[in-house]
Amino acid sequence: MNKKIIDYNNLYEKERIKIDKKLSLALKNRKPESLYKPSDYILANGGKRLRPILVLFSAKAVKGKMNSVYNAALSVEMLHNFTLIHDDIMDNADLRRGKKTLHKLYDINTAILAGDSLLSIAYEYLLKDCKVNARDAISIFTKALIEVCEGQSLDTEFEKRNEVSLSEYLVMIKKKTAALATMCCKLGAILSNANNSDINALGGYGLNLGIAFQIQDDLLDIIGEEEHFGKIVGGDLVAGKKTFLLIKALQKADGHYKKDLLELIKNKGVDYKKVNYYKKIFLELDVIEDAQKEIKRYTSRALNSINKLSNKDEIGFFHWLAVSLIKRNK
Amino acid sequence: MNKKIIDYNNLYEKERIKIDKKLSLALKNRKPESLYKPSDYILANGGKRLRPILVLFSAKAVKGKMNSVYNAALSVEMLHNFTLIHDDIMDNADLRRGKKTLHKLYDINTAILAGDSLLSIAYEYLLKDCKVNARDAISIFTKALIEVCEGQSLDTEFEKRNEVSLSEYLVMIKKKTAALATMCCKLGAILSNANNSDINALGGYGLNLGIAFQIQDDLLDIIGEEEHFGKIVGGDLVAGKKTFLLIKALQKADGHYKKDLLELIKNKGVDYKKVNYYKKIFLELDVIEDAQKEIKRYTSRALNSINKLSNKDEIGFFHWLAVSLIKRNK
Repeated sequence: MNKKIIDYNNLYEKERIKIDKKLSLALKNRKPESLYKPSDYILANGGKRLRPILVLFSAKAVKGKMNSVYNAALSVEMLHNFTLIHDDIMDNADLRRGKKTLHKLYDINTAILAGDSLLSIAYEYLLKDCKVNARDAISIFTKALIEVCEGQSLDTEFEKRNEVSLSEYLVMIKKKTAALATMCCKLGAILSNANNSDINALGGYGLNLGIAFQIQDDLLDIIGEEEHFGKIVGGDLVAGKKTFLLIKALQKADGHYKKDLLELIKNKGVDYKKVNYYKKIFLELDVIEDAQKEIKRYTSRALNSINKLSNKDEIGFFHWLAVSLIKRNK
Repeated sequence: MNKKIIDYNNLYEKERIKIDKKLSLALKNRKPESLYKPSDYILANGGKRLRPILVLFSAKAVKGKMNSVYNAALSVEMLHNFTLIHDDIMDNADLRRGKKTLHKLYDINTAILAGDSLLSIAYEYLLKDCKVNARDAISIFTKALIEVCEGQSLDTEFEKRNEVSLSEYLVMIKKKTAALATMCCKLGAILSNANNSDINALGGYGLNLGIAFQIQDDLLDIIGEEEHFGKIVGGDLVAGKKTFLLIKALQKADGHYKKDLLELIKNKGVDYKKVNYYKKIFLELDVIEDAQKEIKRYTSRALNSINKLSNKDEIGFFHWLAVSLIKRNK
C-alpha cells in the first residue's frame, strides 16, 4: 500500500476526531436547554467534517496555524448543519446519517429555531478567530450563506419545473454546494493573512471540488450501496430531483426511454419499485459514464488550481483529498 | 399643541418613509425571484420601523452621520423581519399587520427559506457600513441574534409550563425584545466610533425602552382597540401566553379568580368568548395598573440612561420617542 495515502488518511482522521470533540463541547452548558439540546443532537451526528477540514488545511497551506482558525472551522460546520436542519424540514426527510432528523425527533418549530440559533452561534465562533481581515472573512462567510439559500431555492424551484438545462443545474449546485466549499478554502487563508493569489488558488480548488462532490452525490444516489450511503438509494428519482443524471438522460433519450423519463418529470418522481428500471435507462444511455467524466473533469480543474499555491508543502494533501472524494461511497 | 412634539413626529416620519423606500428597493432585481419575492412582501409590510430609527438617531446622538449607518439601519429591520417570519410559522399566525403571514400566503418551506435568506442579507447590509469597528459591530449584532433565538425558545417553553416567575419573564423579554433594541442603540454609536460611555448610555436606553415596549405590548393585547392594534385583542389569553399581566394576576389572585386563572394555565389558553371575563379579572386585581407602573418605571430608567450622553443635542428626540411609545395603541 502507498505509504503517503495512509499518512493523509491518518492526518484527516486525527483532525476529524478533534473537530468532533470540539463540536460536542460547543453547546454544552448553554441555556436554555430547550434550544441548545436539539442543535447539540445534530452537531453530534458525525459526518465527514469535510468543510472544517478544508478551513484547517487551507490555513496550513499558506503557512498559517491550524489552531488560529479552529473556531472558524467549527463555524463552517455549524453553518452546514444549519442548512441540513432546515433542508430536512423542507424535504420532509425522516433520516439523516441513519438517525432521526431533528423535526422528526422533536417538531418543526423546534427544528426551525434550532437551525436559526445554530447559524447565530456559527457567526459567534467565526468572530472568535477574526483577528485579522475580520471584514473580509465575515463577508465571504455571509456571501456563501446567501448563495446556499439561493441554491436551495433554485433546487426547490427545479423540482416543480418540467425543464431544467445543464447550465441551470450547474448554477444551482455552484450555489447550493460549491459556494460553501469555496468559502471554506478561502476562509482559512484569509484568516491567516494570505495573499490574493493563494486565496484564489484555494478558492478555485474549493469551487471545482464542490461541483465534483455534488455530481458524485447525484451519482451515489444511483450506484451507491445502501449500507454505505446512509440514505435510501434512488431517493432522488423518487423525489423527482433534477440531478445531473436525469437532466443528461433527458437530453440523450428518444423513443420509449424519452417517454418514460418525461413521465417521471410529469409525476414529479417515481415509485420505489421503478428505481431499478430508471437505473437501467441511465446505464443504457451512458449517463453514469458521463457523470464520472464530469466528476473527473472538475476534479482535475481543482488540482490545477491548487497547484498554483506559492507554498507547495500541503499540495499533496489536497490532491489526496480530491481523489479520495471521487472514490467515496457515501 | 406643543411645537416640539410636532417636530419630532415629523422627523420620525421623514426617516420612516425613507427607510420604507430603501427597504422596498433592497431586494429588487435579486434572483431567484422564488426566494426574494416572498421576503420583499414582508419588508414591504410597513410597521413602525422603530429599530432602524434607533440606529439612525444613535449615530446622530454621538455626532455621527445618519447616512453612514443607513445600511446598518436597514439590516436591523431585516433581522427583525426574519424573526417575524419564523415566529409566525411557530405561532401558526394567520395575519401580520392585517396582511397574510408569509407561510399562509405561500407555504411553510418558502417562509423558512425566505427568513433564512433575509437574515443573510441583513449581514450583507450590515457589512456595507462596517468601515470602523467592524468586529465590534458584527459581534453585538450576532449577540442580539443569539439572544432573540434564546428568548423565542424561552417564550415557547413558558407556554408549556404551569409556573413562570416574574423574574423568568423578565429574562425572556430582555432576550426576545430588549436585546435587539439595545443592539440597535449601540450599533449606530459603535459604527460612528463613539466612546464607551456614550455607547453604554444608548445601550441602557435601548434595554429599558425594550422592556417597557414589551410590557406595553402585553398590555395592548388586553386594552388595545382591535382597529388600531392590527391583531385580535386577547390573542395572548387565547394562546395561553405567560404575559406580565397573567403572571402578576396569578401572584395576586385567590379564591375563584385564582381557580379560573389556573384553569386557563391548565388548558393552555381560553376560548375567545372568555376573553372579556379574564379582562375583568385583570382589572379587579389591578394588574393593568401594575403593568402601567412597570412601563413607567422602565421608561424612566431609559430616560436616566440617555441623559448621560455627552452630547445633549439629541436627547429631546429620545425622550419624545420613549413617551410616544407609552402612549401608542398599536
